[in-house]
Amino acid sequence: MSELRYDPMKKAWVIIATERGVRPVNVQKREHLRSCASEAACPFCPGNENRTPPEILAIRDPGSRPNGPGWRIRVLPNKFPALTIESPLERYGEGIYDVVSGFGAHEVVVETPDNLEQMADFSVGHLQDVFGVYRSRLRDLMKDQRFRYIMIFKNHGTEAGASLFHSHSQIIALPVTPNLVAVELASTRDYFQLKERCMLCDIIHQELEDQARIVLVEEKFIVFTPFASSFPYELRVVPRRHSHDFSLVDDDTLAHLAFAIKEVLTLLRKELDDPPFNLILHTAPPFTHRAGKPYYWSSIESDFHWYLELVPRLTMIAGFEWGTGFQINPTSPEDAARFLRESEI
Amino acid sequence: MSELRYDPMKKAWVIIATERGVRPVNVQKREHLRSCASEAACPFCPGNENRTPPEILAIRDPGSRPNGPGWRIRVLPNKFPALTIESPLERYGEGIYDVVSGFGAHEVVVETPDNLEQMADFSVGHLQDVFGVYRSRLRDLMKDQRFRYIMIFKNHGTEAGASLFHSHSQIIALPVTPNLVAVELASTRDYFQLKERCMLCDIIHQELEDQARIVLVEEKFIVFTPFASSFPYELRVVPRRHSHDFSLVDDDTLAHLAFAIKEVLTLLRKELDDPPFNLILHTAPPFTHRAGKPYYWSSIESDFHWYLELVPRLTMIAGFEWGTGFQINPTSPEDAARFLRESEI
Repeated sequence: MSELRYDPMKKAWVIIATERGVRPVNVQKREHLRSCASEAACPFCPGNENRTPPEILAIRDPGSRPNGPGWRIRVLPNKFPALTIESPLERYGEGIYDVVSGFGAHEVVVETPDNLEQMADFSVGHLQDVFGVYRSRLRDLMKDQRFRYIMIFKNHGTEAGASLFHSHSQIIALPVTPNLVAVELASTRDYFQLKERCMLCDIIHQELEDQARIVLVEEKFIVFTPFASSFPYELRVVPRRHSHDFSLVDDDTLAHLAFAIKEVLTLLRKELDDPPFNLILHTAPPFTHRAGKPYYWSSIESDFHWYLELVPRLTMIAGFEWGTGFQINPTSPEDAARFLRESEI
Repeated sequence: MSELRYDPMKKAWVIIATERGVRPVNVQKREHLRSCASEAACPFCPGNENRTPPEILAIRDPGSRPNGPGWRIRVLPNKFPALTIESPLERYGEGIYDVVSGFGAHEVVVETPDNLEQMADFSVGHLQDVFGVYRSRLRDLMKDQRFRYIMIFKNHGTEAGASLFHSHSQIIALPVTPNLVAVELASTRDYFQLKERCMLCDIIHQELEDQARIVLVEEKFIVFTPFASSFPYELRVVPRRHSHDFSLVDDDTLAHLAFAIKEVLTLLRKELDDPPFNLILHTAPPFTHRAGKPYYWSSIESDFHWYLELVPRLTMIAGFEWGTGFQINPTSPEDAARFLRESEI
């Protein structure tokens, strides 16, 4: 059974997930995947629905039946979950150490039945449906008061951690607040308490004024390279209007988000030769859970601002980076933004 | 010129080092290196001393001359430095953002003239000399009051970030305290203030009692898999007697450290097929710099405890890990320790 364990010195949680089926001695160097092994072998390809756990949610053609073909997007429990909903939620100490049982949810969003299509190929409408599925799952999982955070992310390409080529994202619902999420909740709360302004709203304001790091500005979203970019061509995709919780966005906002993501994925693929990337949703935790108490004039609605982080994985996390939490980035965000801005799709 | 930039939301520093010569569009997928390209091409091979900047320190045969052959260990300025000592140290704001100029030091320790020998091949005596060189450089760099932290680390293998096969380590002296170092300084200080005991001394006590995660116990060092291991077979190599500052260790302690490291590197190579790894020294920052003020009854001498972190890189840092600071580890540290303990070298 898996466990969450806390390192008291590094103040970081770790999931020890020994049931994921990877025997450490057998850890293999991964080959770069360019296609599904074969339609017959791929658990996400249509016709193989019986080889996955029963679906949680699907967008389907009228008349098609659950766990059969006819779907356009399909959400499944992960077959090798890091955490499971069946585990009882228990918190206990082991001497100096802290443990939480491996309670949680681990789902896979199969984004398309087509085993060649990658996210950059999706139509804007299909992308909107994928984000709509994220929103649905978030709404549903947020009802369970035992979850402290629900993490939605996508790994594209072997070097970014994808173990199957067939386009998919993942959802992990956690019984603890992840370290980095806690940092963002605390930094934005402290900022609001000092200034009574949202930090990310202020950043949008400064980026629009400065222009140097802007990649795309559309009606509802702004895409820019962060001032302190950890990786070359790292992007943040941010709603221009203050909004703390992705589960509350409306369909029109999702349509604009889909348009912006389609634009930047197309740019990255063209200019950087289909780079491996991670796409990560940063959103408010379920309402009752947050790091520290806000003052009465601030609340998570006012101080947190959701965004998508899009990180091409062109550089490595080596010893220096692991030991310091400090990335060394060989490309200035201003150069990266100019390069992408000047590209013609 | 390079710059250190601070992300106010993630509370993390980043080095934007655009002079390292890597044009982002040219970032290549790295091939796994199994040898120096050729002795003629390798800047660290003997005979090519004129192709590196002048040496800072070397352990040499009697009568051999600086920047010529006859050395056994050689310390050089990095030819593609992330930070340079020539940059003026400046701190300034850019609107909401914070910047420090790219002031610092970036050195390379060429650990051996032999281009086939890797760290696991070194004799215990040679390893002791390598650690002695770390100590010398640390002592020297700590004299410069502008440095907030001096990071010593080694990347072994392409997947761990090594860009040259010839065995070497790196030293980066920084004008800011790295995020993760600040966390360790704060967590151990807070622990001491509550208990008047060193956290890592308490961890040693618990690990020796428990035995489940012990890999090696010798007279002066203990090697164990951390309770909250982020990676399979992650190891901590810790002096059993409290000691906060690696620059103050004596030669006998270095000899015991060399013995312990030789043992575990031999174990890892045999059992895990020469895994890529990072070796990271965690030591106290120069005395005057620390995160937050201690109370009068505590000090960095009492609350911090230096150690070496040895991290085989068998699993990936993907979207979930990058977004949460949360590793998913498929091997329990108890299994890893038992496996290594039961191995016969």
